[in-house]
Amino acid sequence: MEIDFRKGDGLIPVIVQDASTNEVLMMAYMNQEAWEETLRTKKACFWSRSRQKLWIKGETSGHYQEVREMFLDCDSDTLLLKVDQKGGAACHTGYRSCFHRRYEDGEWKVSGEKIFDPKEVYGT
Amino acid sequence: MEIDFRKGDGLIPVIVQDASTNEVLMMAYMNQEAWEETLRTKKACFWSRSRQKLWIKGETSGHYQEVREMFLDCDSDTLLLKVDQKGGAACHTGYRSCFHRRYEDGEWKVSGEKIFDPKEVYGT
Repeated sequence: MEIDFRKGDGLIPVIVQDASTNEVLMMAYMNQEAWEETLRTKKACFWSRSRQKLWIKGETSGHYQEVREMFLDCDSDTLLLKVDQKGGAACHTGYRSCFHRRYEDGEWKVSGEKIFDPKEVYGT
Repeated sequence: MEIDFRKGDGLIPVIVQDASTNEVLMMAYMNQEAWEETLRTKKACFWSRSRQKLWIKGETSGHYQEVREMFLDCDSDTLLLKVDQKGGAACHTGYRSCFHRRYEDGEWKVSGEKIFDPKEVYGT
């Protein structure tokens, strides 16, 4: 039973969940290399589709994701990671979760908690 | 602020989470039509990539997903639904979650709870 990287042209979606609260933090993609790097280091590593390169989550911000548990779905083409989120926030905007906009009365309204200021972390 | 269906050729990944336990149940895809159907009915509706048609989750099994909350990610291209899972199981194999295989000692081992027998539900 292996991860099926073929369906998504070499990429699989990966859901990342906070291991202690079960909050969904983000979704990203892995290729075979990112998967092997994640296994080796026990830190989440993805494939950046926009930059077309390996992306060790937290490499710039220090907000690494230490992997506690990994789950594979019934089709073997989607992963779920339970992680310990260093720095308390997964989103590059400074919010704890990338899913910080909630649908209310026909609009997406910010509902999450801002943990850090992106300018201070990324210097841009 | 709208959902961006363009990046994924008209499809966005949708993570489905149990509203009461925060367990991640499954991941599927929506197109614009599935999104509008979900909004209209408050039941999760997806686009089946294998069957190339709208897929009202639970239409065959009765295991509908009543949508409680919806969240959009920072890139506006991934959705998170919190649902009330009718019948207690989201996976067509009868397990509560599609992510019922856990990585242990280099292998994927079944770790989830089987809620129903697919033969009884789908008759196949």
